[in-house]
Amino acid sequence: MHRKIIPDIVQRLNIASVKVNDTAYQCAKIMADAHISALIVVDDNEILIGIITERDLTQRILAAGLDGKTTKVGDVMTANPDMLGPDDSVMDALELMQTRGYRHLPVAEDGKCVSIVSIRDLYTSAKEALEQDIKETEAFVFGDRYAV
Amino acid sequence: MHRKIIPDIVQRLNIASVKVNDTAYQCAKIMADAHISALIVVDDNEILIGIITERDLTQRILAAGLDGKTTKVGDVMTANPDMLGPDDSVMDALELMQTRGYRHLPVAEDGKCVSIVSIRDLYTSAKEALEQDIKETEAFVFGDRYAV
Repeated sequence: MHRKIIPDIVQRLNIASVKVNDTAYQCAKIMADAHISALIVVDDNEILIGIITERDLTQRILAAGLDGKTTKVGDVMTANPDMLGPDDSVMDALELMQTRGYRHLPVAEDGKCVSIVSIRDLYTSAKEALEQDIKETEAFVFGDRYAV
Repeated sequence: MHRKIIPDIVQRLNIASVKVNDTAYQCAKIMADAHISALIVVDDNEILIGIITERDLTQRILAAGLDGKTTKVGDVMTANPDMLGPDDSVMDALELMQTRGYRHLPVAEDGKCVSIVSIRDLYTSAKEALEQDIKETEAFVFGDRYAV
């Protein structure tokens, strides 16, 4: 399976981002409005410096009893997150996510985020690739048996 | 693929539960401590009446600017959630989750929750089943070509 993260799994996108001085409340609103579960955090040069997810908000704000309206992104984000490159393979990405328990990984190029991959994207792709393998194997089998 | 939800995907478990008068803060703490992303809501007879997830907490508490310490589970849970039965098939469950965008489904028997299934559990199982299919097809192919 030699699929690459871009373009086989996800496309280049303008990923919604926040900055360290934005609040957890603002993050939650962006996530809710866009129906997404992770946001990247960038500095003033648009360089990727962190990631913040629904899980972070649940665990580090609500479970900690903090006020979402006053708590800053910089205090609850995961700084310097693991990232993928556009040319990384699907299997490398799946391995990294399964080993470390991630559900999202940013895809970066020259320090800037060009896309984000969820474990759901990867499972869907792995499933499609396996189905394709089965189809090809079956075509081979039936071609062998029923062709002239 | 004729795998059943129980026992092929998940086992019967004592699922962590909350009640309608518990607070969102208590939910978030249970989720954070147990590293889980969904809790079921039961009535005084332990009958399943709702589900609450990290996404609900993010969208309905944080994004709404509510106070997690005073907001009750009953006000933010998804009431009367879709459920699976122990004998339902994996493909039915995957279909239901993909169509409606769920990431978790409770498994209920006689109204009581006996397990919970995540879309990750289902993808993992679908992947394993497909890999098994490939192995069997390949065994058939090579058996046909190289056996005496």
